[in-house]
Amino acid sequence: MSYVKNLECLKCGKTYPAMPDSYTCPSCGSEGILDVIYDYKAISANVSKEKLKNNQNYSMWRYLPWMPIIPETIPPLRVGWTPVYNAERLADVIGLKTLYVKDDGLNPTASLKDRASAVAVAKAVETGADTIACSSTGNAASSLAGNAASVGLKSYIFVPGRAPEGKIAQLLVFGATVVSVQGSYEDAFKLSAEAIDRWGWYNRNAGINPYMVEGKKTVSMELCEQLNWHVPDWIVLSVGDGCTIGGAWKGLVDLYETGFIDRLPKVLGVQAEGCCPITTAFVNNEPIRPSEENTLADSIAVGVPRNPDKALRAIRDSHGTMINVSDTQILEAMRLLGSTTGVFGEPAGVTGLAGIQKAVAEGIIDQDESVAFVVTGNGLKDVQNAIRAVSEPIKVPPDMDLLVKALSERG
Amino acid sequence: MSYVKNLECLKCGKTYPAMPDSYTCPSCGSEGILDVIYDYKAISANVSKEKLKNNQNYSMWRYLPWMPIIPETIPPLRVGWTPVYNAERLADVIGLKTLYVKDDGLNPTASLKDRASAVAVAKAVETGADTIACSSTGNAASSLAGNAASVGLKSYIFVPGRAPEGKIAQLLVFGATVVSVQGSYEDAFKLSAEAIDRWGWYNRNAGINPYMVEGKKTVSMELCEQLNWHVPDWIVLSVGDGCTIGGAWKGLVDLYETGFIDRLPKVLGVQAEGCCPITTAFVNNEPIRPSEENTLADSIAVGVPRNPDKALRAIRDSHGTMINVSDTQILEAMRLLGSTTGVFGEPAGVTGLAGIQKAVAEGIIDQDESVAFVVTGNGLKDVQNAIRAVSEPIKVPPDMDLLVKALSERG
Repeated sequence: MSYVKNLECLKCGKTYPAMPDSYTCPSCGSEGILDVIYDYKAISANVSKEKLKNNQNYSMWRYLPWMPIIPETIPPLRVGWTPVYNAERLADVIGLKTLYVKDDGLNPTASLKDRASAVAVAKAVETGADTIACSSTGNAASSLAGNAASVGLKSYIFVPGRAPEGKIAQLLVFGATVVSVQGSYEDAFKLSAEAIDRWGWYNRNAGINPYMVEGKKTVSMELCEQLNWHVPDWIVLSVGDGCTIGGAWKGLVDLYETGFIDRLPKVLGVQAEGCCPITTAFVNNEPIRPSEENTLADSIAVGVPRNPDKALRAIRDSHGTMINVSDTQILEAMRLLGSTTGVFGEPAGVTGLAGIQKAVAEGIIDQDESVAFVVTGNGLKDVQNAIRAVSEPIKVPPDMDLLVKALSERG
Repeated sequence: MSYVKNLECLKCGKTYPAMPDSYTCPSCGSEGILDVIYDYKAISANVSKEKLKNNQNYSMWRYLPWMPIIPETIPPLRVGWTPVYNAERLADVIGLKTLYVKDDGLNPTASLKDRASAVAVAKAVETGADTIACSSTGNAASSLAGNAASVGLKSYIFVPGRAPEGKIAQLLVFGATVVSVQGSYEDAFKLSAEAIDRWGWYNRNAGINPYMVEGKKTVSMELCEQLNWHVPDWIVLSVGDGCTIGGAWKGLVDLYETGFIDRLPKVLGVQAEGCCPITTAFVNNEPIRPSEENTLADSIAVGVPRNPDKALRAIRDSHGTMINVSDTQILEAMRLLGSTTGVFGEPAGVTGLAGIQKAVAEGIIDQDESVAFVVTGNGLKDVQNAIRAVSEPIKVPPDMDLLVKALSERG
């Protein structure tokens, strides 16, 4: 059964029935800031830790009681229940006692965005739509294309011209119609909105569709369950549109309000120096202003974030903070993560780790605090930048003497 | 407890104690064809389907009773328990009633090879080695580098010059020392063997190390358990070195001999036309002869296979067969798989599917037979070839009228 009560506008507080294609507050007109409200008491009464432990569905759908989803609409790809590692050697390097790494790059299309896209496809099926669309810097796109393919829905994807070719190839293999908009992410977003309006496609844009955070929130719910409900002091995520960190916070609040966790962590949001409108707004306590998109972490290069309100709520309500890191620090974090844990993250996927390093150095995170961060996308998504992070292989002809020489030159 | 009895030479039949660094038959000198022999009766007496069902370790290590591994040596990356999908729309296209897809590209470093490399790392830890090495076309390499990094072992990786850059970047991020041998896979293999001899590193080469199939076999064990022990009529895999298909067969035999499955499937091995020494040997019933390495499916471009005996045993004992497919058929299979299921496989990862299409067309597989195949590696590993499989995206400026025009031109 569904425990959804209604949608509530974050801005004006009005409530509405939770229709699958509700995007905009009919009262104040706000987009992207409708919240799904649940009957927490009913969830508490019907779901328990014990019940959850015995649930053999090891995917995001094990949290169905906290989701606005009809079971029959769930697409088949196995999204979620990605592994969490206690990264002891990495913690040592950074100077922390406890550091957990959740590898969300092991989702079906290799990013956290599968969690939102799976919900989008379920909602599209619920409305009877035969086509679903979004604009994306890449991961929302490929996850939507993959999840749509898994149920036979058509997909139209609008990407900015700069999206890495790996991400584009992935969507084309999934059979999506891909529109590469020769302009910024903002240009791609606006053109997709016009097209969705014109042709009546189901809209997966995370900045508008209130259900996307309801998928993304499962990442923090899983994390808590996998840590046996011991909530870490900090949860750290990279921030672009603001939807993912907003989602992670929603999952924590849902668990707290239903009695599954007994405290809430602080949330650290990390942006790239070259594109940090949410950090700037938070630090200066001012409205969001459009920013340049100057970072190699393409998944969080969002100059005009579509969901800053939910992101800022997460930071403020959790007594957390926002921080920026440089591209150099991001590439260093990629190498550090890979060589100490065997986890390969894309630039935006390891930005959280770079933020942790900086936050520990600056005393924002105390070395005795426990920290968890989410690798939001697989490094294979963006090999060109991985190559920038590392040195060249040792090239030798097939000859032992030349090998000995080459290795001794390297030390 | 361990149920390992000993190692047995496939060639001369002699048996030996199962030491972690046993590679060569001390009697006949054969490499790569030692089998791990278990006490099947003891396993049957101590493990049951019910016990397995209640085991909450959802990774390859749930099959520990059938493995030559000391639990304390198991590395932390979560390898195995990859999803299996009942691909109804794909089956329809091919003309089959039942087709299962197991996506082993969702392993930690994105290929089936993680199953072998995790075992290699466990064995290296067991011997007390601080360095582990292999030669590989790419996936064995990156999986070894990742699993070694996860426990702090040093790794030396020998790759042929043609390995795709995505695979190279992955190993360098994992902190491996990478030796790019300017020559064929055979050249890389020989140089690695010399270096391993000289420096006494732990040897992960699958053609030599008898324990690698013991990791790979978990793929078919999982498949059987995930299908609720209903064995499909055919299990299909791409074939390069021969070790993976040999491993899959070993897993099936182990399950059969311990009473977990009541029949054995036929095994279909699929090679690329441009590199098919095992198919040629099987079809002509003659010894293996070195072949050219002329296919875009780099993971199975192995001109001198190191484990043909175990591969041929799998085919013959199962009453299966070998078949070749063209590179064009491989790229078509990549597109077909992606667009009907949302699974993105690398060329060698979808070669099995191309083989199924051909085998159905030729009447080797009957349309009423149930078939399962394994996607052995993620398509993100080799984006350049994925790009060859698909058309270009639609490029438009951010303008609605131009979008309408571009879409109508595409139909």
